Amino acid sequence: MTPRSIRLTALSGLPLVQPGDDLAQLISESLERDGAGLQEDDILVLAQKIVSKSEGRKVRVAGVEPSAQATEMAALTGKDPRLVELVLRESRCVLRFRPGVLIVEHRLGFVMANAGIDLSNVDHADGETALLLPSDPDASCAAIRSALRARWGCDIGVIINDSHGRAWRNGTVGVAIGAAGLPALHDLRGRPDLFGRELLSTEVGLADELASAASLLMGQADEGCPAILVRGMRWERREGQARELIRPAQMDLFR
Amino acid sequence: MTPRSIRLTALSGLPLVQPGDDLAQLISESLERDGAGLQEDDILVLAQKIVSKSEGRKVRVAGVEPSAQATEMAALTGKDPRLVELVLRESRCVLRFRPGVLIVEHRLGFVMANAGIDLSNVDHADGETALLLPSDPDASCAAIRSALRARWGCDIGVIINDSHGRAWRNGTVGVAIGAAGLPALHDLRGRPDLFGRELLSTEVGLADELASAASLLMGQADEGCPAILVRGMRWERREGQARELIRPAQMDLFR
Repeated sequence: MTPRSIRLTALSGLPLVQPGDDLAQLISESLERDGAGLQEDDILVLAQKIVSKSEGRKVRVAGVEPSAQATEMAALTGKDPRLVELVLRESRCVLRFRPGVLIVEHRLGFVMANAGIDLSNVDHADGETALLLPSDPDASCAAIRSALRARWGCDIGVIINDSHGRAWRNGTVGVAIGAAGLPALHDLRGRPDLFGRELLSTEVGLADELASAASLLMGQADEGCPAILVRGMRWERREGQARELIRPAQMDLFR
Repeated sequence: MTPRSIRLTALSGLPLVQPGDDLAQLISESLERDGAGLQEDDILVLAQKIVSKSEGRKVRVAGVEPSAQATEMAALTGKDPRLVELVLRESRCVLRFRPGVLIVEHRLGFVMANAGIDLSNVDHADGETALLLPSDPDASCAAIRSALRARWGCDIGVIINDSHGRAWRNGTVGVAIGAAGLPALHDLRGRPDLFGRELLSTEVGLADELASAASLLMGQADEGCPAILVRGMRWERREGQARELIRPAQMDLFR
């Protein structure tokens, strides 16, 4: 099933996304302009920011009242108590903190800094704002996939990616926080390798590798391209979700 | 510097690599056959396995004498004492273990299972064999880059990738264990974002994202493609190394 060649292309001309915008529609318009269209087995990787914005997940920081716990944690980390309040509301628990660092288990299960709340690349017309993750990124992907299938008549994969820090390694990498239409976790266990030896423990984070690949074209700063078309991938048909990629806490040796 | 489009292509017709093989030569022959050649700013991502094989890092398991410590750890993990002996020789310390799992800090600094020692996809003509990581993967990349520059007259990036498990998330992803000719860690700190707000802590694991992207085309089992050409990337010229990606133990909150 491994492809010989794949191409990743940044969709052009997407407007700055506003709450209520129909992302599938904006994507379709871009694909029409570019002449790329959509083909069976294409994969679209969308930056978390545009999905969150379209779903109205922007919060005005000025209106947030920090709890006692948030105030305490803000003092310990040197962060804005209102931001910490939002982080705690979005999280199941705090895993690690120190000055400048606050790593939590997000209510979606992701271990990440600041619950993925983003104070950069957000329009500040409302004063300081914070952008939360989509409330159900797998469902967001399924809805966008469904709308694009209706428009283009082909079955595709959709991934929402975000940049996450990691244990042990410097630098963020793109990971999948939502997925639809493809196995986020690709199970190779039990297949023979080149010499017929059984592969004992090979599960591949397929959606994460796609998320990282797309990240290469998204940029981070002044030239963001928040939607990437991946063409040429092949995969076993399965209705996967990004939640497959979350290791349950009780199975994790590093929390 | 963000590209609009990139293409990843698996090099065809690479033979099974043997100790002493000249990888740059084998790669060049494949590029000639395919008609792809090499262009300025191309990136080659090579699977750890072929680099290790070419450097003669295959060890006959039968000749390994387990130490008392290896024997004890083998009992605790249910692994072959000779494999554990090799793992311990390649490692600075054991970080976690339980039945079936042995996670170490490799002497190169990588936190990984079994010190990256691979018992699959290895020719077993010598009986059971183990394949160790290259002794200095950054140096391997620099040498291959240099040989390819001499042959093709253009400056490229070279990455050696490997599949690593991760904290918190299921599935392995491709990561860079060696790099030359590009910033493995891409520092965006201090640049303004879309709205002029300063990006405070954005370092991107560029070589890891490339390693993951290439991994999508490498396959794991019966159809391995161990060399991937990435065309279209742009990056700031810098002599980077994969060791930039290793977070020093004293900076790591998750060991």
